[in-house]
Parts: sequence; structure tokens; C-alpha cells
Amino acid sequence: MEQLFEKLKANYDEMVSIRRYLHMHPELSFQETETGKYIKGFYEALGIPYEGNIGGMNGVVARVKGAKPGKTVALRADFDALPIQEENEVPYKSTVPGVMHACGHDAHTATLLVLAKVLNEIKDQLSGEYVMIHQPAEEYAPGGAKPMIDAGVLEGVDVIFGTHLWSTTPFSTIEYRVGPMMAAPDRFEITIQGKGGHGAMPEQTKDAVVIGSQLVTNLQQIVSRRVSAADTAVVTVASFIADNAFNVIADDAKMTGTVRTFKEEVQGKIKNEMERIIEGTCIAADATYQFDYQYGYPPLVNHEKETLLVKELAATIPGVTEVREAPLVMAGEDFSYYLQNVPGTYFFTGAKPEGEAYPHHHPKFTIDERAMLIAAKTLGSAAINYQHVE
Amino acid sequence: MEQLFEKLKANYDEMVSIRRYLHMHPELSFQETETGKYIKGFYEALGIPYEGNIGGMNGVVARVKGAKPGKTVALRADFDALPIQEENEVPYKSTVPGVMHACGHDAHTATLLVLAKVLNEIKDQLSGEYVMIHQPAEEYAPGGAKPMIDAGVLEGVDVIFGTHLWSTTPFSTIEYRVGPMMAAPDRFEITIQGKGGHGAMPEQTKDAVVIGSQLVTNLQQIVSRRVSAADTAVVTVASFIADNAFNVIADDAKMTGTVRTFKEEVQGKIKNEMERIIEGTCIAADATYQFDYQYGYPPLVNHEKETLLVKELAATIPGVTEVREAPLVMAGEDFSYYLQNVPGTYFFTGAKPEGEAYPHHHPKFTIDERAMLIAAKTLGSAAINYQHVE
Amino acid sequence: MEQLFEKLKANYDEMVSIRRYLHMHPELSFQETETGKYIKGFYEALGIPYEGNIGGMNGVVARVKGAKPGKTVALRADFDALPIQEENEVPYKSTVPGVMHACGHDAHTATLLVLAKVLNEIKDQLSGEYVMIHQPAEEYAPGGAKPMIDAGVLEGVDVIFGTHLWSTTPFSTIEYRVGPMMAAPDRFEITIQGKGGHGAMPEQTKDAVVIGSQLVTNLQQIVSRRVSAADTAVVTVASFIADNAFNVIADDAKMTGTVRTFKEEVQGKIKNEMERIIEGTCIAADATYQFDYQYGYPPLVNHEKETLLVKELAATIPGVTEVREAPLVMAGEDFSYYLQNVPGTYFFTGAKPEGEAYPHHHPKFTIDERAMLIAAKTLGSAAINYQHVE
Amino acid sequence: MEQLFEKLKANYDEMVSIRRYLHMHPELSFQETETGKYIKGFYEALGIPYEGNIGGMNGVVARVKGAKPGKTVALRADFDALPIQEENEVPYKSTVPGVMHACGHDAHTATLLVLAKVLNEIKDQLSGEYVMIHQPAEEYAPGGAKPMIDAGVLEGVDVIFGTHLWSTTPFSTIEYRVGPMMAAPDRFEITIQGKGGHGAMPEQTKDAVVIGSQLVTNLQQIVSRRVSAADTAVVTVASFIADNAFNVIADDAKMTGTVRTFKEEVQGKIKNEMERIIEGTCIAADATYQFDYQYGYPPLVNHEKETLLVKELAATIPGVTEVREAPLVMAGEDFSYYLQNVPGTYFFTGAKPEGEAYPHHHPKFTIDERAMLIAAKTLGSAAINYQHVE
Repeated sequence: MEQLFEKLKANYDEMVSIRRYLHMHPELSFQETETGKYIKGFYEALGIPYEGNIGGMNGVVARVKGAKPGKTVALRADFDALPIQEENEVPYKSTVPGVMHACGHDAHTATLLVLAKVLNEIKDQLSGEYVMIHQPAEEYAPGGAKPMIDAGVLEGVDVIFGTHLWSTTPFSTIEYRVGPMMAAPDRFEITIQGKGGHGAMPEQTKDAVVIGSQLVTNLQQIVSRRVSAADTAVVTVASFIADNAFNVIADDAKMTGTVRTFKEEVQGKIKNEMERIIEGTCIAADATYQFDYQYGYPPLVNHEKETLLVKELAATIPGVTEVREAPLVMAGEDFSYYLQNVPGTYFFTGAKPEGEAYPHHHPKFTIDERAMLIAAKTLGSAAINYQHVE
Repeated sequence: MEQLFEKLKANYDEMVSIRRYLHMHPELSFQETETGKYIKGFYEALGIPYEGNIGGMNGVVARVKGAKPGKTVALRADFDALPIQEENEVPYKSTVPGVMHACGHDAHTATLLVLAKVLNEIKDQLSGEYVMIHQPAEEYAPGGAKPMIDAGVLEGVDVIFGTHLWSTTPFSTIEYRVGPMMAAPDRFEITIQGKGGHGAMPEQTKDAVVIGSQLVTNLQQIVSRRVSAADTAVVTVASFIADNAFNVIADDAKMTGTVRTFKEEVQGKIKNEMERIIEGTCIAADATYQFDYQYGYPPLVNHEKETLLVKELAATIPGVTEVREAPLVMAGEDFSYYLQNVPGTYFFTGAKPEGEAYPHHHPKFTIDERAMLIAAKTLGSAAINYQHVE
Repeated sequence: MEQLFEKLKANYDEMVSIRRYLHMHPELSFQETETGKYIKGFYEALGIPYEGNIGGMNGVVARVKGAKPGKTVALRADFDALPIQEENEVPYKSTVPGVMHACGHDAHTATLLVLAKVLNEIKDQLSGEYVMIHQPAEEYAPGGAKPMIDAGVLEGVDVIFGTHLWSTTPFSTIEYRVGPMMAAPDRFEITIQGKGGHGAMPEQTKDAVVIGSQLVTNLQQIVSRRVSAADTAVVTVASFIADNAFNVIADDAKMTGTVRTFKEEVQGKIKNEMERIIEGTCIAADATYQFDYQYGYPPLVNHEKETLLVKELAATIPGVTEVREAPLVMAGEDFSYYLQNVPGTYFFTGAKPEGEAYPHHHPKFTIDERAMLIAAKTLGSAAINYQHVE
Repeated sequence: MEQLFEKLKANYDEMVSIRRYLHMHPELSFQETETGKYIKGFYEALGIPYEGNIGGMNGVVARVKGAKPGKTVALRADFDALPIQEENEVPYKSTVPGVMHACGHDAHTATLLVLAKVLNEIKDQLSGEYVMIHQPAEEYAPGGAKPMIDAGVLEGVDVIFGTHLWSTTPFSTIEYRVGPMMAAPDRFEITIQGKGGHGAMPEQTKDAVVIGSQLVTNLQQIVSRRVSAADTAVVTVASFIADNAFNVIADDAKMTGTVRTFKEEVQGKIKNEMERIIEGTCIAADATYQFDYQYGYPPLVNHEKETLLVKELAATIPGVTEVREAPLVMAGEDFSYYLQNVPGTYFFTGAKPEGEAYPHHHPKFTIDERAMLIAAKTLGSAAINYQHVE
């Protein structure tokens, strides 16, 4: 393990230079062709066996086989960027207008590539097999995880580990969480179809502004009354559009919003209760509706044993000063699909930069690059130590 | 006509004494046996033909036939009292605990009796026939008017006139109104059947307080959105009962209230919209309901020609100083049934007492008794003059 | 009078040709320069004294003085057009793209011009003085009436009459109404200033969609609870805009709408109650607001004596087959300003064309032109007969 | 430890007989004089030093001092009963009409008494000191814990342990939970002061039913919008009373309800937001209000180290077959006060009887008495082992 840590440290500069190169050349979800080539090139150069174009996308899977038999451990890094114009003034600023690695997937990739290199270097001493899953398209539902799983990347895999560098968690901190950790981020659209008419003669209309307003008010009851207080859930109507002249009652009102949950049964219940409330509200007004509910990723639910392993190991990683429970995070993450198929855990590696920390998806998002080294050590430690877990 | 007016004036003291006697001996709706006997005794003594026990109630009908042929004119006075404890300190205060003529029906009766007496005295000079309808049970739906009509009191009747002495309209004023004048006062009861449970576990309940609150809020839209602004309507939820320990969610919520309208189609629409809103609100909450809607009297709608006749004549009555349009009155009146069957009109005779005027049904309700004389003159004038109307 | 009617009839063709000429050359409110010139030219040619550019606008006032002394009677016609593209296929279709006489003001002008011509021809037999008020800019608040009054057109005027040709009232019908007849059509804009944020973290925001929805719901109570059922009033929120990504809670919500009332005290009360409800709703949510309430024209309230005069006279006009009470009309009309200053009345002249009748402001709006003759006769009759009114 | 377990087992029959005796003689909160005497008598007989009348109540504290120096460990049992009529048919049924040990405090007391007896027997082998806190009045806020703490029972105490026998958790199971475990159960009363009046004239009133309904609807937003989804909270309006005749608008509406939270800052925020919403809702309606918020016990928050100690030890207790995380429990418990002052933990000892299990506070509530033995072993084990904790 010590050897692993030292070798990773020795390769830290490469990690940084890979991350910066990728940062300068970001690609949007499902369009990461060059990044895919870059990853394949890296493995090609090292003679590590890999496969590309997994799941009909730009996914890459590489494998390092230890000398001794053992478990098969998957490690995953995502590599797509976002449609954001970078506002950081750094030498390695994005060269692609309107596209930016504003979520740290560049660093995830650099971390995993260098970890793979080091694992390959010490494979004679290793048991088991190590599967590097380079996944595209995490940012854009339905995401890249599911197609990769469908393509078989989890076949024979015993466990999977992943991490997200987190720009608002202090550097040198590892955050774990048993059970639900990240939300299912669903999306909905509602159209209330009323009947327009003259603003002075409401009795000849079905006033979509009033019906929609009532609906928004009624929907508050889902979280306040119909979901257990012990279950975390959010129902937000984010937009409400009924555009009209000041004296003309609207024909329809359109709403969009999001639902966040951490359990599938809560997710299902909320969808049902929404439909029930929309239906009842429209019946009360003799109106009709359209309700379109799009499931996002499932909630990310960490497995207990694997999470506690990471918690325990993290405390022993050089450079880690704090190991703590992660809060529930309302954002979604398609790593959840892997955890539906095999045991494993996803953790946060603190990467808060000096100075002001910007949240993920912000044009000024940045990280403390040293977090990559901690992430690599923790992932590597978990992967190797998992061989000894009963 | 002058003779009529003079004779009425000459009999004013008797009017007062009749009214005061009745005031001392009030009887509740459908229980006015002694008052019925008193009325019959009055006619008996004068040899005016009458019939009692009309419609299986205490109703009395007396007839004065003029010497010449002509139209048959009905005049109506109601004679029931209210379950109110009188708070006036007058020599003729109610002698019946908890029962009071707090709406002036004592005065209506005195007015009509004396008018009948005078008409009888001058019958040789009169054309047509005059039907005095003494109706019980105006105060208590379904009321006494309908049974009397069913019993045939309007058979052969060409027109009907009636008046209400009005304690808040200045003495010496007559108020008329063409078309709708008094409301249909309906009553409703709603029970929302939810599902109770522990106050800390709303997700296991269907919270009847929340459902009921939403219902009350939604019902506001009937008047604001679903009835033409030009149509007068009120929907009031007067009581809301969900009684419970502070930490137990209620099983059900019970509401009662009233609807006031001036047109049958508006009345019908409101009942339908209420049911629609109750149904939709319950569907939205997966709850059930009971909705009981009891029609009160129909709206009182005056006929134009007869109303304008009274308006015109009123201006000529000695003692009348102002003739004006009545406002819409939200109270109901079962005189409306007569007007559904024959032409006619109902008007208000100002009877505001000196000093503070209390509204009808108030324990301190009283009237300026001189209004009886004006009422008698106006009714008599209308009745006799109607003979000349084409 | 007979002479008046005959002369009007004799000039009917000119009425039609004036109306059609104006119809072909419509001008928008406050821009009616050519129409103003046309009107002045008409009077110039007849030698009738007139003044132009009244109130700094295109208003014209002409005066016909009878031989004998008497009352001064004003007659008003408006002459602006609307920003509507005509869809009628007639020889005299509007020649101005996007501008149309879709409210009949062309016909009002033709009616008044020809009536003035005839009055001028018979002035030797007339008493009093006749003031023809040709008012621009009725369609666009704050309207042309007020500036003309401010410029003194009502000085010395005893009474004013006006009419609107009404495309949905049957031809040959006159509609009058004592008291309030047309609404005060006010306009409002509300901005709720909340605080935006991530759709999954509502506790860090002040959700403007929810606050706005509650506000719309609460505003329903103004009509349902805070205005007497006997007072006609409408409060409509016509538009509701909070535009946003599906997962971002809106910073603000903007609403626009209209209020219609028939009494100034009701208008004032509603404005106050709106502000009260907006303020309370925002306090409950710790949000702020902007509330902009723009008064439209005041309610049009006809004077009783003058209205009943027109009612009575209308029944005697050749060609009029029905005289009836007008319903309350929710639209506004700046004739209301004249009626705040002098006695008078405004009535509707039925002008429903054969075939389908389109409402005012519709691209296919049209009238039965013969209604102009009836309007001229009724206005003329009212004007001349008013000389005999005590 | 083995000796402790054996001695406890040997005394199990006494535990049962003490529990049954107390079950037959229940006393209400703050009135437990005889129970207090019983406890004191028990210690008196054994020569264990004790103090009574702690905090001016019936509280008793007894002390067992080990031979060696060490930490001071407090163990707490509550001993009040409930105003419930027992419906169990058992030989040891409550002999006091309407009073019942329906929450297991009889068993808590028996457990602690016997544990004290055994600790006393082995005190020569023990380090440290053991403080038995027999607390009255747990069931009735403001509760007995605070006065006992104020009276100094925690002086010199290093740690405290307590348990609740839980009738719906399977026998032989121990449930622990780090951090918040039981809610702060607050209570509120709201009176909306409107202005009553005739049901047909809402404009003369301030309709408390409508205002209250709006308030209930608005309060839903506290949980749905103003508290983080990750924080567990409930706001329930349990009762709503506006009692009235069907045609009279209510003067006021009274509501009562409960708030449940697990963090003091959430508790404080909810109280503030409630007041904000009540105030805004009343301002919007020009009404006034009274808002009375009564804090219940604080949330019970277990300390991590002590909880994990119990978790670990529980797995080693003979008879314990499962150790698991407790769910969040919405009920309150004044053990929370002790945990605000010293480290410690509160855990549930599964006591589900054979056959149907009734919830706490049910007239048929009962327990599997063998759970007392497990509770005593776990408490004893925690107490003694805590001497070795760094």
C-alpha cells in the first residue's frame, strides 16, 4: 500500500498535466470523441488492454490483472463536460467556447488514468483484477452509465468504487454515507388546458391562471402531508407561464419543475400523488391537463459494508485529515445504476480550492488539484484492500 | 280612495291594539293556533266570510266581494313569530319566553285585518273581489306559502300584493323593485371524510383539516369566476368543525353554509359548481364526501307592471314622502311562491322607529307603528286601482 | 320633429357615404389628423361655426344656434380607429394596413355630422344651442374626453347625449339604462420579488411561483367576500409569468390583469383590498412586491331623468321597434367623464347586421348602416325635446 | 460481566413481581407519591443510600459506589403512569380506574431497581459510582427531567444511559441511533379574530373560516418550502373550530396542532415561519390573531461514542439476537434534557409481546416482560464497561 501511495505521489505531476489538458479540451455529453481517443491512447501507450466505444458511445474500459487470483474490482470515472462558458482566468482555461469542465470530470479522468498506470506497474504483487470504467455522458440524462452496464462492463465485477471531487468540501476531507446519498432528480411538465375569454367575463371561461395557482398551492401538500417526514423529498414548480394581454383570460398555463427523492417508493408515490392532485384540481374546474413526468437517474444508494470499508481506510490515507459523513446531496448521479447491479460505494473527496469556492456547474468552478492524489490513493486503497474483505 | 284613506286613519288605533295584542302573544311557525283563531274571530265578528286551516296549517283566507264585477286581488300577510327572547321594555312585550314577533308579522296582520274591515265597509262601491291571505310559517322553510297555494288560495286570483314593514328604511318611505328583489336563501352541509391518525405521521392519513381548508378556498371561485359579475350571488361557508386533540389528525371535517341567489339558473349553476369543486378537491386528496344542499324559498321576483303601478300610486298616498328603488335584499321570503303563480309585487314600507333601529330578527327589533297605516293605504290603493289596469 | 326625421332620412345616403369614406381612412387614437380635417371641412363647407385642435388634440366642436333662446345641448361622437387588420371584404374596406374602424366610430361621426347639417337647416325653428363634440381617442386611455372637457367644451352645456351603435343588439332596438351602465376598466401589474435558487433547496429561496399562486388564489376573495354581492365587480389575473429552467426556483413572478367596477367606491375598495392582500401575502413569505394600478375611465353612470326621456322618446322614433333596458356592459367608455360634469345619458343603438354579428374590436366587425339613421333621429329628438324638460 | 448477567437472571422473578405490583398501582404524572415511597422503601431495605423528593417532586436518586475509583455513570428510569383505562384482562390489571401504566414505566422502574440491587451486591468488584435516577412525570410536559437536573442529579455525572421498552420492536432486539432519535413534540394554538355577520353580507365581515382555511393551506409551505428536505419536520393543524349557524359568518376560528422536529434550529425556524405566515395571512384579511406556541421537550440527540458503545456491547448480551438502527421516532422524551447536559445515549429494548402488539398509550398496551432482563443487562453492561472507555 505504501508503494502504491508513493508511486501515485511520484506521478502527481502527470495527473495535473492530464487534468489540465482535458480541461482545455472539454467535450459535451455523448460527443466526447476526442476525450475517448485520448483515454484509449493513454492505455495503448502503456500496453494496458482496453476496449473503446462501449455501449455505442465513447466509453472506454481498461483492465489490469494482478498476478494472483482474486476479486474483480471496478473503478469508475466520468469524462464529459458542460455547456458553460468558463470564467476562470487560468493558463489551462477551456479552449472551446461555451463548453467547460465545470464539474471536475477532467480531474476524475486524470485520477483514474494515473491510478491505472500505477496499478499496472505493481500488478505482480496484486491479487484480483481491476476494471477501469471511463464513462461518458454523466451530465445528460439518460446518461452513459446504463448503456455501459447494458454493454456488459459489470460482468464478473464483484464491487465498484467511485468518487466525486467536491469543490465545497474542504481539501483533505473524505465524505462517506451509508445508504441513500444522492437524489433521484426527476423532471415534470404540466399543462392546464382551460378556456380563455374576456377578462371581464370569467364565467364564460375556465381560468387557467386560477387553476394553475391552485395546483401549485395544492402540490405543496405532497411533501407536507403525503410523504413521511423521515423521507427526504422535494417537489418544486420552477416555472409558470400563462402569457396574455391584461384583459384576456388565458387558455392554458404551463408549468415545469423537479422532484428529488432518495427512495424509489417515495419517488413513485410522489408521481402518483402529483397526478392525483392535478386530476382533482382539473375536475374541480372542469378543465383538462397534460402531465409529463420524466424520471432522472435513480437515487444513489451506497452499500453498507463497502462504505464502511472506505470510511475506515480513508482514515489511514496519508494526507487525509478528516473522514466524515456526507450530507444528503440533492443532485443526481448516474453512478447509482452501477450500485443497483453490484455492491460498492461512492464518496466525496474534498477539493475546496484556496480562496472562494464556487459550486459545481458554476462558470468559476475550480478545484484544489491535490485532491486528485487523495482520490487516487483512496480508490486504490479500497480496490486493493477489498481483496481481503470476506 | 279618499274615503278608504280616511276610514283607515279612523281605524288606526284598532290597528295598533291588534298589533300589540299579537305582539304579546307570539307563536312559532307552524304552531300559530291561537293567532289563527284570533284572525278567524276577527272576521267572524264582522261577518266577513273566511276559511281556516288552509293547507292543513293555521292559514286563514277571507273574502270581501265588491258590488260590481271585476278582478280578484289577493293581499297577503304572514303571522308567525321567531324563537327569540324579546329585549324591548314595552308594555306590550312578549309574554311568551323565548318567542317574539321580531320581524313585524304582528303588524302585517293588524294591517291586513283593518284593511279588510274597511274594504268590507265600502264594498258597495268596489268592483271585483279581495282575498285576504293570512299565511302562517313564513320564517321556517319550507314555509307556509306553498301549502296555501297547493290548497287553492290563488284560484281565480288575478294579482297579488304584499308588503314588509322594514325597520331600517325611514318611516314614510315606500321601496319598490322591478324583477328580482329578495334572494333564494339555500343551505348546505358538507362532510369531508378523510382518514385520521397521529399528528406526526400525516402520510398515513388523509388530513380532513387540510382538505376542508382547500375546499373553502376553492369555493371562493364560484362567485369570483363562475358566475357572471352582473348576477348577484353569495356562497358562504359559515361553520367549519374538525374537533380533535392537538396531536391527532381529524377523520372528518364538517361545514355548513348558505347560498344566496336571485335567479334560478344561477342557483342551479352554483349548486353544480359546488359539487364539482367538492368532488375534485376530494379526488385530489383521495377522500370522500357527503354534500347535502337544501333549497330555500325561490328568489322573489316582482312583476314589472304591478310594481310600477305601486310605485306610481305610492307617490300619491298621504303620508308617503319618498318612493324609491329597493336595494337587493339577501334575505328570503316565501311570497316568492305567489309571484311564481300570479302577477304581483312585494314592496317595503319604511318603518324605522325613532332612536336606534335594530335589524329584523334582533331581540330589540321594533317598528314605527304608523307605518301600518301607510302600508294599509298603499295595499288598499293598489288593490282598488288594479281594477282599472288594462 | 317630423321635419327633422324626414330631413335625416333624406340625407341618409350622405351619412352612408361619409361613414364609408371614414371607414376607408381610419386613424389611430391621438393620430386622427386627417379625420379631424375632414370634420372641419364638413362644417366649413356648410358655414357652421366650429373650433378644431381642442385640448391639443384633433378634437372638433361645432355649434348650431337656434333662433330662440333655450338650453345648450351637447351631442358627442368619437372618431378614432383601432390597431386591427380588417378582414371584411367590402368595397369600402380599410385602406390602411393594420388599422380599422372596428368599433363603429366612423358611423358615429357620420351620424353626428349629418344630424348637425339638418339641425342647421332647421335652426330657425329651434330653441337653444346645439354643441357637436367630435372627440378623438376614445379607444386609448387616458382618452380624449377629459382633455376636451378640460379645454372647456362643456362650458354652458346643460345636458349631453351620446350613443354607441352596437353590433350585437338587434337593429331597430334602443337600449337605455338608468345609473351605472358601463364599467370602469382598470389595469394592474404585480411583481412578486422573491429569491431564486436551486430547485432542490427551496429553504434557501423565497419561491415566487408559490407566492404568486397563493396571491392569485387569495385575490379571488375580493369578489367573493369583500364586495357586496349587489355590486358588480370583476378581478381577473390574466397573465402569470415566472419563466425558468425546470430545476431553478424563480426570482420573481409577474402578473397583469384587469378590474371592472361600476361604482367609484367599489373601485377604490378593490384597489385597497388588492394592496392589502398583496402586502399580507408577501409578508407571509418574507418577499417584496411592486403593485402598479392604472385607473381606466370611470364607470359610465347615466342620469335618471335624461335616460328616461330618451327611453320615452325612443318609443316614438319611426323605425324603432323595441326599447329595452341595456345589460351592464363590462367594457369602458370615456363618455363617463362628460356625465361626471353635466346631466345626460348614453344609450345603445342596435346595429346588428344581417348574417353573423361579430363583436366590437373583431377584424370582421360590421354594422347595419341603417342604425345611423335611427341614432341620428334619437339623438336629435332628445336634443330638441330637452328644451321642454323642466 | 458474566456475574452481572447471572445475578440479574436470578433476580428476574423479583423484577416481574415489582413491575406487576407497580402496574396494579399506577399514579399520574406529578402525583406519584406512593410509587416514590415504594422506590425509597426498596433502597431502604437494601441499605443503599438514596435521596427522595428531588426537585420538589417524587423523584428518587440512589447511589452505589464501587470499591475502586472511576467514572460516575447515571442510569435513569421514569415511573409515572397515564390517564387511560386499562383494557387488558390480566391478574395484575390496574386497580386505579382511569389510570394505567400504558407506556411501560412500571417495567423501567423494576428494571432499574433490580439492576441497582445487583450492582450493590457486586460493588466490591466495581470501579466508579452508579447513580440510579428514578424520575417522575415523563408523560406530562414540562416533565420531571428538568427539575431533577436543576436539583443537581447530574452533578459529577460523567455519562448517562437510559432505555425504553418498546412494544412494537421485536423481543430480543436492541435499537440504537446516533444523533437525533426522538422528536421535539411542540404544541400550538391559533385564534383568528375576524368579524362575524350575516352570511349573505360577507363584505361587512372578516370571514374567519376563509382566513383560517387560507392559513391552513399556507402553513403547508413550511415543510414543503422553508425547511431543508434533509431535515425531518412535521407541522400539523389537528383541529379547526368555527362553530356557527349556517347563515352567520363566524367571528373567529380556533386551531390547535403540533410541530415535530429533530433539531433546535429547525424548531426555532418553524415557530418563526408560522408566526410570519399567520401575521401575513391576517394582514391580508385585516384580521388579528393570537398565537400560542408551547415548546415540548427538546429533540433527543444521542451522543455518538456512547451510542456506538451500546451498539457494540448489545451484540454481546445473552438473549439479544439483533442490534439495529432505530428509525426516527416522532414522539418526544424528556431524557433529552439529560443528554443536553452530559454525554450518553438512549436506546430501545424490543418488548413486543406474543400475539398482537398494541402501541404505547393504548388501553391494551402490554410488553414481553423478559425484555426487562435484556434491558437490565444492557444498561448494566454499558455502565460497567464505560469505566474502560477513554
